[in-house]
Amino acid sequence: MSKTLFPPSLHERNQSSLTNLITSLAKIPGLGTRSAKRMVYHLLGAKDQSLNQLIDKLTYLRDHARPCQRCFNICFAEICDICANPNRDQNLLCVVEKPQNVEAIEKSAAYHGRYHVIGGLLSVFDGITPEDLNIEAIRRRITEENIKEVIFALPATQDGRTTLHMITDMLLDMPVQISIPAQGMPLGSDIDYLDQGTLMTAFKGRKPL
Amino acid sequence: MSKTLFPPSLHERNQSSLTNLITSLAKIPGLGTRSAKRMVYHLLGAKDQSLNQLIDKLTYLRDHARPCQRCFNICFAEICDICANPNRDQNLLCVVEKPQNVEAIEKSAAYHGRYHVIGGLLSVFDGITPEDLNIEAIRRRITEENIKEVIFALPATQDGRTTLHMITDMLLDMPVQISIPAQGMPLGSDIDYLDQGTLMTAFKGRKPL
Repeated sequence: MSKTLFPPSLHERNQSSLTNLITSLAKIPGLGTRSAKRMVYHLLGAKDQSLNQLIDKLTYLRDHARPCQRCFNICFAEICDICANPNRDQNLLCVVEKPQNVEAIEKSAAYHGRYHVIGGLLSVFDGITPEDLNIEAIRRRITEENIKEVIFALPATQDGRTTLHMITDMLLDMPVQISIPAQGMPLGSDIDYLDQGTLMTAFKGRKPL
Repeated sequence: MSKTLFPPSLHERNQSSLTNLITSLAKIPGLGTRSAKRMVYHLLGAKDQSLNQLIDKLTYLRDHARPCQRCFNICFAEICDICANPNRDQNLLCVVEKPQNVEAIEKSAAYHGRYHVIGGLLSVFDGITPEDLNIEAIRRRITEENIKEVIFALPATQDGRTTLHMITDMLLDMPVQISIPAQGMPLGSDIDYLDQGTLMTAFKGRKPL
C-alpha cells in the first residue's frame, strides 16, 4: 500500500486544482458549471492534442492580442486589418461599443467603412465615465482621416442612448454628418445577437440624427 | 499611413488566430460557437488576470493530470485520493464508464467504496473493443484488494448493457457478488445528468444480478 506516500492534504490540494479550473471556467460568460465540467473532462480525455493546442492558442492570444492603435478593435499588429485596408470607404466611421460588434457588422456585409470601438458604455451604475472610454480619439480621427459621416451603432438601451447623446454633443461643432442605423434594431437588444438581415436593414436605412 | 507595414497576408493570418481559437473552442462538447465567442472576448476584455490564470490552470492540468494507477480516475499523483483513503469501504468496487461518473456518484454520497473507471463502453459503431478499455485490471483488483462486491454503474443504454454483460461473463468464476444499482436510473440516461436523489435511491436499492 502506498497510502503514506499521499497524505490527504496533498490529495486535497491536487484534486481541488480540477475543481478550481472548473469553477473559474464556469464564471466566464457563455459557460456554466455544466459546460465547464464537460469541457474539462473532454480535454482531459481527448486522445488528440486538443489541450495542448488550446493552451498554445490562448497563450498566443495573451501575448499578441492588443487594441488597434487607431480604432481600438482587437488586433495582432499596430493597426488592425480593417484600418489598414485601403479599399474600405475612408469617409465613413462606425462607432460601436465593443469588438464583438465589429465582427457582427462585418459578417452582415452591410457596412464598408471603418470602425471606432469605444470599449463600453457610460454607466452610473457601473461607474463608467467618459474617461474610461475611447471617446477623445473620435474628434481627432474625424479631422485627421477626413471623415464625412459618423454612424453610431450603439445598443438601444438606456446606457447606449446616454453614451450616444454625450458623444454627439461633443461633435456638434464638427463638419460631419451624424447618423444612426434605421429602426430595425429591437429595443434593449445586444448587437451581437441580431441576425444579419436585421443588421443589413438597419445599416441600409440609416437616417440623419 | 502605415499600410505597407501590414500586408494583407499577415493580417489575415493574425485575425484568423482569433477565429481559429473560437472554432476549436466551439468544437468542445458543452460549448458552441456563440459560447466560445463570448468566452474569448470576455477573456480578452477582462482587466484582471483571468486569461493568465486560465492558461496556468490548463497547463497544470496538461502537465500533472494522469490516470490513477489503480482505478484509472483522473488524478494528480500515482494513486488518486479515493484509492488512497483508508476510510473507504475496501470490499466494494464500483465500475463506471468515465471520471465524470465518479464525481456525480461522490456528490450523491450514496456510495463509500472504491471505483474502477473503464474509460468508455464497448461499441461496434465506434470500434471500441475490450482492449481499448481498462477491463483486464478488474480481475486483478478483485483478487489483490479482496473485493467482495462489484457494483456496475454503467449507463442504461445498449452499449452500456453490452459492456456490462461482457465484463460480468468474464467474472463468472470469481468469488464476488455482482450487482447493479436499483431501478431508478432512467433508461438511456447519462449518469452525469441524474439528480442526487435518483442516484441515492439507485445505490441504496441495488440488487444482485
